[in-house]
Amino acid sequence: MESTKLRIQPDRLQKSIEKLASFGRNEQGGLDRTTFTPAELEARDWLKQELQSLGLDVVVDQAANIWGKRPGRESGLPAIAFGSHIDTVPNGGKYDGALGVLLALEVMKVLQENHLTTRHPLELVSFSAEEPNPFGLSTFGSRAITKKLTKKDIEGVKNTDGELLTSALKRAGGDPELFEEAARDPKELTAFLEVHIEQGKRLINEGIPVGIVTAITGIYREEIVVFGEANHAGTTLMNDRKDALAAAAELILALEATCKNHPKNEVVGTIGTIAVQPNAANIIPREARLTLEIRGETKEQIEEVRSKWQSQLEEIKSKRSVRIEQKVLLDQPPSPMSEEIIQVMKEQADSLALPYSTLGSMAGHDATHMASITKSSMLFVPSIDGKSHCPEEESKHEDTEKVGNVLLQTILALDKKTRLGGL
Amino acid sequence: MESTKLRIQPDRLQKSIEKLASFGRNEQGGLDRTTFTPAELEARDWLKQELQSLGLDVVVDQAANIWGKRPGRESGLPAIAFGSHIDTVPNGGKYDGALGVLLALEVMKVLQENHLTTRHPLELVSFSAEEPNPFGLSTFGSRAITKKLTKKDIEGVKNTDGELLTSALKRAGGDPELFEEAARDPKELTAFLEVHIEQGKRLINEGIPVGIVTAITGIYREEIVVFGEANHAGTTLMNDRKDALAAAAELILALEATCKNHPKNEVVGTIGTIAVQPNAANIIPREARLTLEIRGETKEQIEEVRSKWQSQLEEIKSKRSVRIEQKVLLDQPPSPMSEEIIQVMKEQADSLALPYSTLGSMAGHDATHMASITKSSMLFVPSIDGKSHCPEEESKHEDTEKVGNVLLQTILALDKKTRLGGL
Repeated sequence: MESTKLRIQPDRLQKSIEKLASFGRNEQGGLDRTTFTPAELEARDWLKQELQSLGLDVVVDQAANIWGKRPGRESGLPAIAFGSHIDTVPNGGKYDGALGVLLALEVMKVLQENHLTTRHPLELVSFSAEEPNPFGLSTFGSRAITKKLTKKDIEGVKNTDGELLTSALKRAGGDPELFEEAARDPKELTAFLEVHIEQGKRLINEGIPVGIVTAITGIYREEIVVFGEANHAGTTLMNDRKDALAAAAELILALEATCKNHPKNEVVGTIGTIAVQPNAANIIPREARLTLEIRGETKEQIEEVRSKWQSQLEEIKSKRSVRIEQKVLLDQPPSPMSEEIIQVMKEQADSLALPYSTLGSMAGHDATHMASITKSSMLFVPSIDGKSHCPEEESKHEDTEKVGNVLLQTILALDKKTRLGGL
Repeated sequence: MESTKLRIQPDRLQKSIEKLASFGRNEQGGLDRTTFTPAELEARDWLKQELQSLGLDVVVDQAANIWGKRPGRESGLPAIAFGSHIDTVPNGGKYDGALGVLLALEVMKVLQENHLTTRHPLELVSFSAEEPNPFGLSTFGSRAITKKLTKKDIEGVKNTDGELLTSALKRAGGDPELFEEAARDPKELTAFLEVHIEQGKRLINEGIPVGIVTAITGIYREEIVVFGEANHAGTTLMNDRKDALAAAAELILALEATCKNHPKNEVVGTIGTIAVQPNAANIIPREARLTLEIRGETKEQIEEVRSKWQSQLEEIKSKRSVRIEQKVLLDQPPSPMSEEIIQVMKEQADSLALPYSTLGSMAGHDATHMASITKSSMLFVPSIDGKSHCPEEESKHEDTEKVGNVLLQTILALDKKTRLGGL
């Protein structure tokens, strides 16, 4: 069969989705498949069997990433890699991460049953520990293979039960001693593709089945501590107060207004955590500790919000005579996706007569890190009601099929390029 | 000596203050004398010895309140009671509560050495557990004797270490089995007087040594839970959010503005506690739980703030499409002090040529509860810098002396009244 006529099998894909969703299912219908838990290890075993039954070369690297490798027919060419992750947040859904791995598996099945051997080697990857987890290290696997996590970073790290990350890693087939050997030589790879659910409402609201990701959001996080003065909530007149919580309330609303007023809809800011001291009904708060997060598709967008908010913070500080300490927790720049792959994706969607939309990813993904060693891009599937990280997380079957076919055809089109090259 | 010429001995008072401050002193110079702790039991023993050495009839009642009773010379008259408490907050100061008990002790010493027997019986009282404590029951002793605490209220109550209140009470000499017999018959009392530090800056700022309390603040407390929608902090656009913390921030600032704008300076409102769920940097808060407190000298003042704030709450709720649950935790009405005693106090301050000011107490006190069974009033001593509940809590020696003499003369003047009567 002409390779442009190849299509994924949607029913087989749905069966894979339901099968993988049987590992870690809880009573609320959600999935508890946090990284390295027994349920996640079962899911890993199932995936490895699937890859083996396709005749792929199954490799578990030092960071416990699972690879299913398929040789190409021309020697010396770098690989086209694609995949995502199978761990979930607590009480998560069956699409986040899993869909990217299962569509990659479906692509491999289509190639296998059609006896099609690509020029480039193909590598399916299921990354370890993409989600926030009790070890406090998310996008663990993709950071390991892009040298962003070192052996030193993982030594001594324990989860909330006191288990060492290194022990858990061993159980999943990793090797903490040789951890840094998980790093991939950029020369071995020519592209990385990841399919993921959107986790937002932009595609679903516009009725567009295919999202082509232009950039992955930058994430800026800061810890802010406001120091006021604890005092008796009865005897301290309103004008004599230095209420740390009231100052924090102004900071929260200032961030919200600054983001709402930004011309780009995708610029968002959140204060997700707060703790006050001494936290007693009859004592004026002495201290309020917050974490601020700003996301945007460009460094400039993030900086616009940050600097505007900073000047509001200075005003609030001086008006209320409080002291404020700020500490940058994360300053992850946005990752632009590969123009070259985006162009190929658009062409494939057009050939398949599928409407698409280009958009930024406001969530972080393994592709953020992969983009530092190879040309990368992502495809988004619409999320029903924009829901994710919950049992109700769902995508329409016809949408997963459409995006799956764009993935398959993009891989085949990239494979035909004579000068694909590296980054 | 003519009784109007009697004066307290300021040096002896200072020695008592320093002696009592030796029980529970910590390394920061503060006092750790939480109720029923070993340090507080030592202080109780010392006080009982002092009372015994004055020949008073020492009684520890079922609520472990310590009484030092001195008979009057006319049979059948009700008693004039006066005192305060000797427990402290953690790392508290040496004046809060203690000064009221030690001035009462000093008054008893002056009468004793001058061989003066009053017409009415006199009763010094040191109330159990006035301060917030690990058993969660403040103004414990005064509530017990005014029938506001029942045996049922104390059964099964444990502190944070898991010790039963009933066991701790027994160690202090109380009797949980006969707890309700601590209640005093209002007929046995004709007046209650309490000296306390102001815990605010009004007297010290005006340079006035004697505060005569007109009312003890009412305290209204509510728990408020704002329910928004947890969502991904990256993929959820600003206009799609139902951020429970941002709504809470508006509630905090609305309360602050309402209280600041109230014409009475003494009307205060505080949000002292906050907790959000799920409390993660990258998740929009689903839930924010706050406690609100409003204090005022009259029911009307509290209601003005409460109703104005409530209408702002309704606006915020509808504007932000959040749900809000409210639960009243405490609705303690203001306690007006006895006009009759206030008048006597003013006359005594005038006779002693001492400037005084009348003011409301913005903190709660044992006198709040005593006012429900007998005519009560309080005298305030200025607090240096308005500080209390901390090691720096301090009052000037000359101010404690002046207020002590007003107390002594007020007791003697009340004693002379032929028709003192009950409430």
